[in-house]
Amino acid sequence: MKILIKANYILTMNEKDEVIEDGAVIVENGKISKISKISDIENENVDYIIDDRPNILLPGFINTHTHIAMVGFRGFADDKDLMDWLNNYIWPAENRAVDREFIRIASLLAICEMIRTGTTTYNDMYFFEEITAEISREIGIRAFLGEGLIDFPTPSFKNPEEGLKIVKSFIENYLNDEYIHPTLCLHAPYSCSKDLILRGYEIAKKYNIPIHMHVAETKSEIEIIKNKYGLTPVRYLNSIGVLNHKFISAHSVYLDDEEIEIYKNHNVSVAHNPQSNMKLSSGIAPIVKMLRKNINVGLATDGTASNNNLDMIDEMRSCSLIHKVHLFDPKVVSAKEVLKMATIYGAKVLGIDNLVGSIEINKKADLITISLNSFHLMPIYDPYSAIVYSANGLDVSSVLINGRILMEKKELTFIDFEEVKYNAQKLKEKVIGSL
Amino acid sequence: MKILIKANYILTMNEKDEVIEDGAVIVENGKISKISKISDIENENVDYIIDDRPNILLPGFINTHTHIAMVGFRGFADDKDLMDWLNNYIWPAENRAVDREFIRIASLLAICEMIRTGTTTYNDMYFFEEITAEISREIGIRAFLGEGLIDFPTPSFKNPEEGLKIVKSFIENYLNDEYIHPTLCLHAPYSCSKDLILRGYEIAKKYNIPIHMHVAETKSEIEIIKNKYGLTPVRYLNSIGVLNHKFISAHSVYLDDEEIEIYKNHNVSVAHNPQSNMKLSSGIAPIVKMLRKNINVGLATDGTASNNNLDMIDEMRSCSLIHKVHLFDPKVVSAKEVLKMATIYGAKVLGIDNLVGSIEINKKADLITISLNSFHLMPIYDPYSAIVYSANGLDVSSVLINGRILMEKKELTFIDFEEVKYNAQKLKEKVIGSL
Repeated sequence: MKILIKANYILTMNEKDEVIEDGAVIVENGKISKISKISDIENENVDYIIDDRPNILLPGFINTHTHIAMVGFRGFADDKDLMDWLNNYIWPAENRAVDREFIRIASLLAICEMIRTGTTTYNDMYFFEEITAEISREIGIRAFLGEGLIDFPTPSFKNPEEGLKIVKSFIENYLNDEYIHPTLCLHAPYSCSKDLILRGYEIAKKYNIPIHMHVAETKSEIEIIKNKYGLTPVRYLNSIGVLNHKFISAHSVYLDDEEIEIYKNHNVSVAHNPQSNMKLSSGIAPIVKMLRKNINVGLATDGTASNNNLDMIDEMRSCSLIHKVHLFDPKVVSAKEVLKMATIYGAKVLGIDNLVGSIEINKKADLITISLNSFHLMPIYDPYSAIVYSANGLDVSSVLINGRILMEKKELTFIDFEEVKYNAQKLKEKVIGSL
Repeated sequence: MKILIKANYILTMNEKDEVIEDGAVIVENGKISKISKISDIENENVDYIIDDRPNILLPGFINTHTHIAMVGFRGFADDKDLMDWLNNYIWPAENRAVDREFIRIASLLAICEMIRTGTTTYNDMYFFEEITAEISREIGIRAFLGEGLIDFPTPSFKNPEEGLKIVKSFIENYLNDEYIHPTLCLHAPYSCSKDLILRGYEIAKKYNIPIHMHVAETKSEIEIIKNKYGLTPVRYLNSIGVLNHKFISAHSVYLDDEEIEIYKNHNVSVAHNPQSNMKLSSGIAPIVKMLRKNINVGLATDGTASNNNLDMIDEMRSCSLIHKVHLFDPKVVSAKEVLKMATIYGAKVLGIDNLVGSIEINKKADLITISLNSFHLMPIYDPYSAIVYSANGLDVSSVLINGRILMEKKELTFIDFEEVKYNAQKLKEKVIGSL
């Protein structure tokens, strides 16, 4: 199918930051085949036209660190101390309520929310990821998925040994899939033994896949790792040789200048979660320093128990605002820069910037439009500003992934809304019933 | 007209924090006449039923500090240093582009945005406020309005003397109006002479109206006032005797403990603008300390050149998150507390908590519903959390002010959308043309 998309502004997010006014993109066989002015393609024969102007066309958002099935715990426990939150609410609830059915319902709900709000690729760490993979492939959203390895029993495995088996089988099932990219997920330096981390690293190396790990998220983590290994988390991971260009360090709140240099030297990427770090009072990551060193920094929502939505536009705004006030510099993390974090930089974090993250000929057609047909988006002086500082996820109008239209004019094309709603209620009953 | 509103949750925001599940409110002659379970009013005769369930019913939002007509500059100049922003963009653009027509178009656009996103009362300081008053009264939104007095020429007056005349005439026109509450606006301690402040204070006292002033917004303001008067802004204002229970201190970022005590002793109220303070890198106001001392603290968006929308839900989320991370305490500014800031505390700031701000018998029917019919609001464990941590302004479904239905199921009842859109484009042309 040959699809034509018309837009008032195309934000290409390419290296030259090109913006095309009154532009058009043609999509053929899942790829972008033409980018031009509308006036230049008037005689082009196409099968389908998407025209939701007034609008902005841009690459779909890339959420670089999620636990999507935690939508089942959205708003279940807020305003709590981190350890109280984890020990007395989240972990017990996960252990009692999370099973294959929970993951099936919650993954579908979360994917609907992500597509509704413009996310076309996500990088997930959670339980029963083979179920999340099935649903992601069925719907057709690009998903980086890995079962979270940890020293303790989880809903999906009794011990790390069993976990490693599940992980290997998952990787082999999905190597070279069009939509599903397996990753090697290690929960965190404080919850994974050195042995588990090293064994995970070897698997990731063997299959040439990303390692995805929570690193240096909280002050208390730094103390725990220092007490245990005599080193900070980043120095410890470096000392055992597991940092490389496929390592994705989620959070990375507590990094000193030397540790940032270590990340730079090993080409480690970072998934920045500003709202989660704010809501749990973890701290403010030194992202501006990292960006200045050209470290790949992507944006992420984290799970919806600590956020509590998967809205990447909302996350972009928080990201820009928190660093401005923290550094007393209104010029840092501009609208354009944070939009790069949510698109092309995110693609670099996941190692797929040759495929997606910008609007360029031959890239996959992972594209979204933002409708400007709302009071809060009038007038428009600067489309970057309109998205980052004024819009929210509900302003997303159309979504294509791999050239398939998954939403048009704010209506999902692939799902019965009432069914998702009915099932969401079942999630709640499951959690409440497990208490 | 007798209106019945049905809701899955009613957040009364009353002193007992009562939440009524499967509740109903009856509105008669602009006031709330009954609050009960739906099952208890099944035989009630009514003229009209609003039923946009699944939903949450709550008091409309109260925005305690705005410059609404600045929607005309939304996204016009971002990511700039404060003084660069003011001196080289905002002030020149205001001087060249702002006239009566600009204010007419911009006020209407902003009021549409506010109603669309659930704001039912706002407290504004800007130019040609008599035009904003006309439009507010015509539409029927509750507005506290005051022409910003300042030492310099503005678009609406050549000198403070002329400004004072305009201010007095405005006050006399609108004393005892149902919708319009005149206020005495003084721009800031650094931009108003002592004489102007004292003359303004006398007018406010004579008419028993609020004083609305930017105070202690930035570090540089503190230095300027210290150099000029040997005192910090709050101590200076206190020394000249203008602080009282009708004083609304916008921003109030730089207050030490003694100054907070001064505010407490004089019953001064504060309008907190977290996103504006973040975007302009002004700083983080000591709001948690103020709340603990029971100082009235309302929430506010500021103008849309420094924010860039009038979405109070978005503002609530930023407020809660910024204080949590700043104080390293995830328990502060809980969802319930920040929702109070946006409703009943805001009503206290403006001195109208006997009229609005909570759902109680005989209060004015300034009511909104939040639709829960969206993926990002499923499932619901806690309605406070759903609004503050997951929703945004576009989830607002119905809006009543003074018992009049201004929006139902996300459709404004009073305006032609295309006309507002057409006029918004004219605003931009006016600004661009003035450069």
